[in-house]
Amino acid sequence: MQTAHDRIEQALLAALARGEPRGAPPRLTAAVRHAVIPGGARIRPHLCLAVSAACGDSDPGLADASAAAIELMHCASLVHDDLPCFDDAAVRRGRASVHTAYGERCAVLAGDALIVMAFEVLAAGAARNPLRLPALMAVLAQRTGLPNGIVAGQAWECEPFVALPDYQRAKTGSLFAAATEMGALSAGGQPDVWRRFGEWLGEAYQVADDIRDAACDATELGKPADRDRTLGRPSAVAELGLVGALAHFEGLVDHAGQAVPDGPGSRNLRALLHAEAQRLLPPRLRAQVAA
Amino acid sequence: MQTAHDRIEQALLAALARGEPRGAPPRLTAAVRHAVIPGGARIRPHLCLAVSAACGDSDPGLADASAAAIELMHCASLVHDDLPCFDDAAVRRGRASVHTAYGERCAVLAGDALIVMAFEVLAAGAARNPLRLPALMAVLAQRTGLPNGIVAGQAWECEPFVALPDYQRAKTGSLFAAATEMGALSAGGQPDVWRRFGEWLGEAYQVADDIRDAACDATELGKPADRDRTLGRPSAVAELGLVGALAHFEGLVDHAGQAVPDGPGSRNLRALLHAEAQRLLPPRLRAQVAA
Repeated sequence: MQTAHDRIEQALLAALARGEPRGAPPRLTAAVRHAVIPGGARIRPHLCLAVSAACGDSDPGLADASAAAIELMHCASLVHDDLPCFDDAAVRRGRASVHTAYGERCAVLAGDALIVMAFEVLAAGAARNPLRLPALMAVLAQRTGLPNGIVAGQAWECEPFVALPDYQRAKTGSLFAAATEMGALSAGGQPDVWRRFGEWLGEAYQVADDIRDAACDATELGKPADRDRTLGRPSAVAELGLVGALAHFEGLVDHAGQAVPDGPGSRNLRALLHAEAQRLLPPRLRAQVAA
Repeated sequence: MQTAHDRIEQALLAALARGEPRGAPPRLTAAVRHAVIPGGARIRPHLCLAVSAACGDSDPGLADASAAAIELMHCASLVHDDLPCFDDAAVRRGRASVHTAYGERCAVLAGDALIVMAFEVLAAGAARNPLRLPALMAVLAQRTGLPNGIVAGQAWECEPFVALPDYQRAKTGSLFAAATEMGALSAGGQPDVWRRFGEWLGEAYQVADDIRDAACDATELGKPADRDRTLGRPSAVAELGLVGALAHFEGLVDHAGQAVPDGPGSRNLRALLHAEAQRLLPPRLRAQVAA
């Protein structure tokens, strides 16, 4: 039987391959592939497939397409966030960032191509259930663009004043919300009852990211450490201190667990959530949360 | 009765307004609006509505959504093409380019938000005919992303070698093709018979752009003149000379006229084409083509 991991990687590889026939610009296709393969934890697409499973997984192809679309959007945002005008990050996932490897122009275009590819994958995946497509597209667009998707979240870094929860909710929470909503929609389920689960989990993930940034070194992170402080970015650790941020993280994970709708898959999903929450923290801090 | 111009501007304004509720990041929404309003000639959305009309315009709301989606993609490509790492253009449509007015970070994000908005508008416009959405999305994605949409076309500027027709076909022709195909699809018509018309017209438009770049001054253009030569970009004038480029343009317009499928609206559309072709050239060169 195919694992969720296999389904996600196959869907991503198929999407990349469709963009790489003879005649495509070779540097751009290489930059796009570099942005997607090998990936990180693929937490958003895993979340999408887990919710689709909890809703009966009535169209696995559409769930795979939704999962891939969300991950492609996430990869696009990483490529653009790493650009010299934002984080100027030379390293991502332990190797050269896209603009370091292929130049700034290819990185701008790779992000653009990935956003387009996300919608393309979704449309192609809806062949069996085309009537599910409009709502899936609407969610993907809302959670990505204006007024409060991940692009809007990133834009708060350009504003003179920003409230930390608004910023994190848009920058990270929105794509987690999309993962749960699209998982439900791809299976013909109701997105609204799943949104809060995704939002809490996304907020927890962002706080864990802030904690790792402050508490891990570059080797553990696969990218430079302590970037939030260096760049003066809003961060849960800057606002609450390390101990406060850990307590906040724990509270958010609890909220996420409570937001899982009751049903045949809810126990599995809560177990998955708590295992994942442990994995998100630096090893030496895990015991504190587990206690 | 609403003119095509009114339909296009209203659809664009409605799309912008949906992204601008209280709580949206104000600099980004301003940058996005700056990129779209006021527009240029809106030639692509006009083309889309003209083809929808020729196909019976059975869903005007979907035709408007298609037209707006194409124009939003076009605006996104202008914002990113103007960035310092590409053309480094300080002026566009007679005023500050987006990155000059709002900074490079907002310009990157504005382009991203516009790409997402294009798909969002399309999905929202398909409420009456959702079964037309998958094909419309597929065309919009194909003509925009990899392997040969406008993003791929722009990427040829990063490659060491490029054939001029491939570059122009992808960079400009593809969105013109989308305009004709999506005009047909939004009315329930066949996209394939319209594609060549859009492709020829797009190629003609790109050649006219090269001619204007070489033969007009900055005031006439609303942006710096002679950029192709300055930046060493592929150009029909560089390859064929001004007289050769004019003859090439004339030939392409003729091909476009011949590619209009015969039907009730074909005579109108050919007349529109030849009027538009005159408008594309610098005034002092028009007589040569009309002769």
